[in-house]
Parts: sequence; C-alpha cells; structure tokens
Amino acid sequence: MNLEFIQHLKQTTEAKIAMIVMDGLGGLPLDDDGLTELEKANTPHLDDLATHGICGLHIPVAPGITPGSGPSHLALFGYDPLRYQVGRGVLSALGIDFDLKQSDVAARGNFCTVDEEGLVTDRRAGRIPTEKNKELCSLLREIKLPGIDLFIKTVKEYRILLVLRGEDLGAGLDDTDPQEVGVKPHEPQALNPDSKKTAQYLKQFLNQAREILADHHPANMLLLRGFAKKPDWPSFQGVFGLRSAAIAGYPMYRGVAKLVGMETLEAVDDVKKEFQLLNKYWDDFNYFYLHIKRIDSAGEDGDFERKVTLIEEVDAQIPKLMKLNPDVLIVTGDHSAPSALRYHSWHPVPVILWSKHCRPDDVKKFGERACMHGGLGPRLPAVDLMPLAMANALRLEKFGA
Amino acid sequence: MNLEFIQHLKQTTEAKIAMIVMDGLGGLPLDDDGLTELEKANTPHLDDLATHGICGLHIPVAPGITPGSGPSHLALFGYDPLRYQVGRGVLSALGIDFDLKQSDVAARGNFCTVDEEGLVTDRRAGRIPTEKNKELCSLLREIKLPGIDLFIKTVKEYRILLVLRGEDLGAGLDDTDPQEVGVKPHEPQALNPDSKKTAQYLKQFLNQAREILADHHPANMLLLRGFAKKPDWPSFQGVFGLRSAAIAGYPMYRGVAKLVGMETLEAVDDVKKEFQLLNKYWDDFNYFYLHIKRIDSAGEDGDFERKVTLIEEVDAQIPKLMKLNPDVLIVTGDHSAPSALRYHSWHPVPVILWSKHCRPDDVKKFGERACMHGGLGPRLPAVDLMPLAMANALRLEKFGA
Repeated sequence: MNLEFIQHLKQTTEAKIAMIVMDGLGGLPLDDDGLTELEKANTPHLDDLATHGICGLHIPVAPGITPGSGPSHLALFGYDPLRYQVGRGVLSALGIDFDLKQSDVAARGNFCTVDEEGLVTDRRAGRIPTEKNKELCSLLREIKLPGIDLFIKTVKEYRILLVLRGEDLGAGLDDTDPQEVGVKPHEPQALNPDSKKTAQYLKQFLNQAREILADHHPANMLLLRGFAKKPDWPSFQGVFGLRSAAIAGYPMYRGVAKLVGMETLEAVDDVKKEFQLLNKYWDDFNYFYLHIKRIDSAGEDGDFERKVTLIEEVDAQIPKLMKLNPDVLIVTGDHSAPSALRYHSWHPVPVILWSKHCRPDDVKKFGERACMHGGLGPRLPAVDLMPLAMANALRLEKFGA
Repeated sequence: MNLEFIQHLKQTTEAKIAMIVMDGLGGLPLDDDGLTELEKANTPHLDDLATHGICGLHIPVAPGITPGSGPSHLALFGYDPLRYQVGRGVLSALGIDFDLKQSDVAARGNFCTVDEEGLVTDRRAGRIPTEKNKELCSLLREIKLPGIDLFIKTVKEYRILLVLRGEDLGAGLDDTDPQEVGVKPHEPQALNPDSKKTAQYLKQFLNQAREILADHHPANMLLLRGFAKKPDWPSFQGVFGLRSAAIAGYPMYRGVAKLVGMETLEAVDDVKKEFQLLNKYWDDFNYFYLHIKRIDSAGEDGDFERKVTLIEEVDAQIPKLMKLNPDVLIVTGDHSAPSALRYHSWHPVPVILWSKHCRPDDVKKFGERACMHGGLGPRLPAVDLMPLAMANALRLEKFGA
C-alpha cells in the first residue's frame, strides 16, 4: 500500500497514537528452557496489553532480510524501505545528528594510508582512535573553497562525514574509495552533468587534504564514498496528518525521525526520562515515537539477562503511559537482535497493537511464540503498522462508496 | 523481493542448505478419520524436525492456483514463477532431458490426422502409441535443411519435441496448431523480423514432413506450438552464491534444475539411493535439491495408502541426513496432490524449516493442520523459502545501516 493512497484517506481527529520501539526486541532461545529474552522477562503490564490488544509478529523489510536501523525504522513509520532508500552519505549525517539541508551533498569519508607513490596500503588508516580523527578534522577545516561551505565531522575512529553546501551541487558521483589496497584512490568522477561542478570542488578539496595530511601517517589521505542528497520524500505529517514527535536519545534514530519530518524532543537516554517526556509533551502532539536503544545493545553484546532486565524496565513504564489515555498504542521492536546471535537478525518481531477499537485475539502473553498465534499473524509487513494505527485511531476514511 | 536484491546481499560462508522436495506432498482427508496422507503417516523423524524447526504452509504460485511442476519448482528455487515463465517448447525439452542451447528454438509437436483436403480431423492422431511415435520420428529425421540442425524427439504417444539449432534463429512464431478440427494447420508465421528465417525453415520442414507422413494415417501430419528459446535468467549460483546440486531421477525435474544452472547428479529413482547420493556428494556442494517423485504419482493414482507409505519411507531417511550436519534443512513439497482429487491442487503445502538459528514454534507434528499454526504461517509465498534458507545459513548481509 503506498503513502499516496493513505494520504488520500486520512482525516483529522484528536486521537493520539503512541509507538514504543524497543530496539532489537526479537530474540531466540539460548538455554534449555527454550525461552527467548522477551518470553523470559516478567512483563505483567505488556501481557495485559497483549490480552486486550491484537498481537503478531512483523517483518521489517522482507522475509529473510536482516535490516539495519534505517530501513527498519522507515518501515515502522510506514515508508516501504525497499522503495525509500537513503544514500549512505545521508545516513552518515543522520547518524551524527548533522542538520542536512535539501541541497547539501553528503559523503562518508575514511582516513586511509597511502605509500610514497600514492597507492592505498590501509583503507582504515590502522583504525586511528577517535581523538586523532578529531585533531585531523580540525586541520582539514582550514580548507576553504570559493563559493561553497564545507563541513567536516568526526564520526568514529577512522570515519568522517563530509558535507558540501552550495548552489547547484549534484550527488551523481563515483566513490573515490577503490575498495581495495595497492591502487590509487579514484579521482572524483561526475556521473551526470549536474554533478560536474561538485567533482571539481572535490578534486580541489582532496588535493588540499593530501597536502595537509601528508605528515600524519598512518592517516595521510582520505577516501570518500556514498555521495548522496537528502531525499525529497512525502513527510510523515503530510501523509498521516499527525503532529509527530520523536523521543530518542541516539543520533541515528533522531536522524531517521527528522528525515521523515518528525519533531525531535530532548535527547535523553534513560527509559524513565523518555516516558517522562511523553508525559510532558502529551498535549502537544498526536503521534509519539519513543525509542529504547539499550535493548539492542544488550542483544549485540550477547547479554541475555541484561536484555531481559531492560525489557522489564520498559514494562514498568506502561501503566504511566496508559494513564495518559492513548487512543492507539503499538509496542514492538524495529528488528530482532537475539543474544544468541549477537547481531541484528531477520527473525520477525513481536508486536502488540492496542486500541479502544481493536479486535482482541487469544494472545495473553507478549512473547515470540505467543504472538505467532495472534490476530496480526506471524508475518505482518512492518509497513502495514501505520495504516493499522491510523485505522484504530479512526483517522482513515472509508475507501470507495 | 527480486533476485537482484538478494544477489546484492549474499555473502559467502561454508554453510550447507538441503531442500527435500516430496512431489505432491500436500493432501486432503479421504476417510472418516479426517486425516490427510501426511497426517496419517507415522513420521517420528519429521515430527522431531518440526518440533525443533519452524513450520508453515507455502503457496507455490498464488492463492487458488494449481501449479505445474515447472512453476512450482521455480518458486522453491526462489524464482517468482509469474515473472520467470518458460515457453512450452522449452518445458517440453526439459521434460525429456534434452540439452537445449541458448540459441536453439524448441517447439512442442503433435502428430495429427488430416483428410484429403488437408483439414485437421484429429489433433492427436488417435493417440498413437509411443512405439509408433518413435518409428515416425526416425522417418522424420531423414529431413535435412541446409544451414541448421534439426532434432526430432519422441515425448510420449502423439507428442514430440522439435528443436532447430543454427545461427540467428528467432522464436517469435505463431503456433501452426489451429486448436480446432475442420480447418487446415496454420502456415508458420513470423511475429517479428528476427524470426522470418525460422519461419522459412519450418515451412520447408513441414512440407517434407507432410510427404513423409502421407501414408501413415492416422498420424499423417504434424502440428507445432509453443515456439521458445531457453530463457536468459540469472543463475541460481549467481544469485545465491551456492554451489548447487540436484538429486532427481525424472527428466522434468533435472531439466528445471539445469534451467537455473544447478549441477545434476546421477539419475536414480529409489529414495534410499537418492539419500546415498547426498552422502556421497556432501562435501562438494553447499546446496542440495533432492526430489522424490513417487509421492505425487501415488496422489495422482488416488492411492492414499501408497502415498502414506512413501512419506514414511522418506521419514526413515532423515536421521542419515541429519548425521551430515546440515546448517539449514527444508522439507516440503512442490505442490499438493491429494489422493482424494487424483490431481495436482492449489492447496498450500506443508513445510519445515530447520536450522541452527531458526526460531522454533509450537508445532510438534508434520502435518497440514499442525503447520497452519506454525511460525511461517499458513500462506507463505514459496519464493520466500530461499531467502529464508539463506538467512538461516547466515549467508545474507544486513540491508542498510
């Protein structure tokens, strides 16, 4: 179902929707008891929601596909992540909360090592520490190019963000990163006429960067890739007619929310404080996306018990949320991140949709196996959640006469 | 999800995938006990796999569609059978294990009966026996056309395969089979300029065939249809990065496997011998397709008990397979063939996906009704199985950051 179709049917009411996203929620059994993290967690309030709501498991991108956070969040926001793909440069900007303008061209950069002939010997410059990266970035900021502004930002270790801001810049450019060692970095190459000027700027920039970095072995050169502009997508507010707010502590998630036009509230990283923000801003918006990051981190660390505990912490916040009297509440994750795999995975993600008008199923417990038997089915495309939320908020008109 | 997308995400590991296809597996109840063939079968090893794996029912092509073996197998191999359609002439060549080249033009042929005015009186020449067909084919092989090679092969009864091999042959040709009696066969007609030369060759061929067959009433003429070339599809190995082998005794299934570029191992028709091949070649490939034909034949014969017995024979082979330590094992059918219907049917097909990283569901028994409650759901598109197998083999990279 496409966004234009939903946009056409949307109607304005005062109903409020809250979407609680426990990052990496889905899990796998690790011990002989055969229970996943969520199944092991003691979650009386979520179980109560499951009992009165409708449950299932959602597939973030497509069957078998392990999603990154960008695509999986776009799907939760109703944007088909196979259709709405973001360039790597833009994702990099989102990841450090850089305020990208529509006309900017963003790229990922690596500090790298080149030998005396200019051949790449290490694409990651020996993985220099972040502090060194910051030093080198300040040096690079001395580069000035007439007619445009340059932004050079430390991401982490050997990685940086480069943004060119000016008029008529195109992002149709080949990577300068050759993706192998023993060869020279590629010269910036325009793939279309609109990007020729940008290629010229990049050549000037890289020539000056080479000189500045020459004495800073192992980080004596830069490789660039993933040139991209901020995409011109329909906004979340425009599509769904919802005044929307994102409560998320980490830059990447704030970035994706901003990408679709949500307002980002204060960045806090404590679950209790995040739910307090919900309380504080409850009257000002009619859609809240609340993101809980640390559950994913526990999964990626392979820390089953910590993941269990963090899920229980979220459970404890649910009564406060219910006191706000939401019309629709969705509790889910953006993808699975089983402690057993220590990584994002393709497994479907448990979801509860609770509303005053939902049709409850037989599920009485929030867990992977219980949700397989829920009314939303074991393989609901994640992009369907927003239309369902809208319907349950009575915010969609009838289609056809 | 298209093959290009999967191809882009594939990564190489040593993980091995086995796909066991019991042809026509899905069934229907026949007696008062209400059990299907699979439900009636005593399958302790498959039930154990079901208990530790994730189960469901797959839809080979689309809801309500009864598939032939070609489309249903393409779906199992990850090729959307509505997008990847094979011309009838090519299917006919696959069906008799003819080694079709990319530039060949293949057609189905019927011996038919024409009267003294050349009007078709029987499109199937009184269903002549296969032996008669073979005799006539040897006579037709005397036809020589300058510049091309002709292959004339008996299929069965009144049906033959005709292949033209040469340079610059097109397959854009109308059938000469008028699909009705009382009219003359159509003249070969090119539908595009590239096929004009082929139409000329066919006219010469049919003129000579008419003379040769004149005294062989009722098989005194030939009708041709389904002109086609071998399609230029992405290969299974190219898409999934799997060194793949097909274990199948019957030409049709060997043909479909070859069509996507799998290697075909020795043709044996005994289930035990097929599993022995798996053992013999286990180290040489990382994907095995093992096809068991006789279950479908039992269904088409309406022989419920024989179908039950044959399923039990496969069950007995599972422990041997598990000793090989596969990373991913899929056990399913290509379509349903209920003894009650004596024919292929549209009913979804039971499937077990077992892997070291699957998320087990509550299903404890391999059967149609049990699988309806499985984690793969009761209506999984068959084309999703290969991406799921790849994910479970940890052979797919994360999509997006």
